[in-house]
Amino acid sequence: MPQSPNDIVAANLKRLRAKKQWSQEELADRCGLHRTYIGAIERGERNITLNTLLEIATAVGVTSAELLTESRNAKAV
Amino acid sequence: MPQSPNDIVAANLKRLRAKKQWSQEELADRCGLHRTYIGAIERGERNITLNTLLEIATAVGVTSAELLTESRNAKAV
Repeated sequence: MPQSPNDIVAANLKRLRAKKQWSQEELADRCGLHRTYIGAIERGERNITLNTLLEIATAVGVTSAELLTESRNAKAV
Repeated sequence: MPQSPNDIVAANLKRLRAKKQWSQEELADRCGLHRTYIGAIERGERNITLNTLLEIATAVGVTSAELLTESRNAKAV
């Protein structure tokens, strides 16, 4: 079964944030979002909008499309 | 200035729908959305969610990431 787009973003975001060794709080500050909201996104609990997707993608240095693309190799992005 | 993600989706959706020669109403029926909502998305007036993006992308036969990617060549997608 294909992952939902929010689940794909959750997995990519967790991986990219870990790579940068940022806490959820640090990422939240860089996005202008709340830490608890970042936590909910990383658990796939929020159906985020395209503007929020862009804010997060910009903060972690990828495109919106990349953040939405399922990664076959966790080390790839 | 880069286009907003909702503007990119708007442009891609208009092009893909035209290619299929579907009315907004036909696309709306295939997505389970209202015709006036499709119209607003095609004008970039809505900040859509990832689940809505996926519904529309599936209806026109592309991935969510493709629908979010700026097209350099209108004939490319």
